Amino acid sequence: MKDASEMYIPTFQDMLDAHERIKPYIHRTPVLTSSFLNDLTGADLYFKCENFQKAGAFKVRGASNAVFGLDEEKAKRGVATHSSGNHALSLSYAAGRRGIPCHVVMPHSAPKAKKDAVRGYGGEITECEPSTSSREAVFAEVQERTGADFVHPYNDPRVIAGQGTCSRELMEQIEGLDIVIAPIGGGGMVSGTCLTLSNLAPEVNIYAAEPEQADDAARSLHAGHIIADDAPETVADGLKVPLKDLTWHFVSNHVTDILTASEQEIIDAMRLTWARMKIVMEASSAVPLATIIRNPDIFAGKRVGVIITGGNVDLGKLPWTQG
Amino acid sequence: MKDASEMYIPTFQDMLDAHERIKPYIHRTPVLTSSFLNDLTGADLYFKCENFQKAGAFKVRGASNAVFGLDEEKAKRGVATHSSGNHALSLSYAAGRRGIPCHVVMPHSAPKAKKDAVRGYGGEITECEPSTSSREAVFAEVQERTGADFVHPYNDPRVIAGQGTCSRELMEQIEGLDIVIAPIGGGGMVSGTCLTLSNLAPEVNIYAAEPEQADDAARSLHAGHIIADDAPETVADGLKVPLKDLTWHFVSNHVTDILTASEQEIIDAMRLTWARMKIVMEASSAVPLATIIRNPDIFAGKRVGVIITGGNVDLGKLPWTQG
Repeated sequence: MKDASEMYIPTFQDMLDAHERIKPYIHRTPVLTSSFLNDLTGADLYFKCENFQKAGAFKVRGASNAVFGLDEEKAKRGVATHSSGNHALSLSYAAGRRGIPCHVVMPHSAPKAKKDAVRGYGGEITECEPSTSSREAVFAEVQERTGADFVHPYNDPRVIAGQGTCSRELMEQIEGLDIVIAPIGGGGMVSGTCLTLSNLAPEVNIYAAEPEQADDAARSLHAGHIIADDAPETVADGLKVPLKDLTWHFVSNHVTDILTASEQEIIDAMRLTWARMKIVMEASSAVPLATIIRNPDIFAGKRVGVIITGGNVDLGKLPWTQG
Repeated sequence: MKDASEMYIPTFQDMLDAHERIKPYIHRTPVLTSSFLNDLTGADLYFKCENFQKAGAFKVRGASNAVFGLDEEKAKRGVATHSSGNHALSLSYAAGRRGIPCHVVMPHSAPKAKKDAVRGYGGEITECEPSTSSREAVFAEVQERTGADFVHPYNDPRVIAGQGTCSRELMEQIEGLDIVIAPIGGGGMVSGTCLTLSNLAPEVNIYAAEPEQADDAARSLHAGHIIADDAPETVADGLKVPLKDLTWHFVSNHVTDILTASEQEIIDAMRLTWARMKIVMEASSAVPLATIIRNPDIFAGKRVGVIITGGNVDLGKLPWTQG
């Protein structure tokens, strides 16, 4: 972890600038409601559908802000990352829109579908062994060779400012929210939400939702310092990564609480959303609804914004058709 | 088939009246686009998302029009049907909103999920044997006993006028369409589309899309008279039923052509839509896209309204995860 004094903490103005910068490259995603889910939870739920976002996830907001904020000279050398999830897709998409290279380091064992998706958006993959040491070595080599700008999936002020544009739109779309809730992995979306709402609507309570089996952020918040788990396993595979200094700054200062849900509750909430709202969303995106169903004492009677973070799912391998 | 002179053919004013009548009970569904699918087809596709409709399908438009158009005395005795698909759900929903009984005759062999769904919307199920003779006998008995008003799933002027409200909304939402295309089974949605567009926008070409394995409507149109197949088999299970006199009237007078797609093309188009548009829709709803992909000579360069008819899918049994 870097010393806190080294961190640049993105400002509300950074978020506003990000929104202006990325508008041509992102969707203003719709907010959907479901009378069935409202009846079930006793709350008024407003789902901000980032599963309909470009590249299928909110991550394109932060990635586009990083890519389009580079000066011409830096941009020529491209961008790089070692995510194998939605951030890699999103960074590839944004780099493609700017016409610059995007280097993605991925283990050779990563699913072919993920590699194809990154390549489909124009990303160039360099394979590594499936270990942290190999990934770091290969990534360093790629950066050295290309001079590409490293865009971290979440612990980057440009990325957090970009993610903050999501809740700005939500506040424009829906009035009088009491609560906004989003899933938490590394904390990029939650940090962006904190950045925006602490300035725009400080009366709104911010909750985060996490799988029980990867509850490092919840334990961090309750302990008062970052706790990082080693390789947690959960169906919500976007939420396995730990908090870092920058996201910890926002989460520890602005999040009311981090709630958890079991694997079965997550899968049930995911299937319920597909069946009732007719939308395809990732398991990670179902964690907030799972915690809302579990905690009527917190949510019933409230107007709740729920951020559906992404919709990139392996349709051939759905969690309720396994085993 | 009744003599044509007996048919009441719904008018444009009937459709306008239907829209006014049903507005409190239906969603004005959104129109979505996909740059990926536009690139793939070379067309500008505008998807009218009736999968987001109340009860998960456009059928609630016609069913609500029938239910809320009944006078008080008739309404007290309720409504009845023998569909086991979206029409039964929709009629149950509409009757529930009016607070009147809805009787649904279904074979005892129908999937439990379908029975549960009808009951979930307040429908009362009377079981029959899985044969036409038993269904007709049981249905006659139910009607005799209850005096309920029979609402046919498609061959009913009230139903067709209701379905016509969908393309009225589409024309308000999207300007300058060249073509509107919808799946065809019994022809209720297509007839409603013909009713509305032949008055509102006669320059728009209306196409229908049908599974090759249940292409009775296409063969009917080409032969110039109704051809009804006996129990066709297709993954698009909403499209197995034949045209009837009233829907034949509209289809034969206003449809430019009926295009077909293979089972594999339908499944591929369905999966592509789920993967790229992140929406859950039925196999029946994928038939138009399958035919658009197959016929670039007709659709490329055109602005095309595509009616996604419904989203009621057995999520535990998706066609691409079968055998």
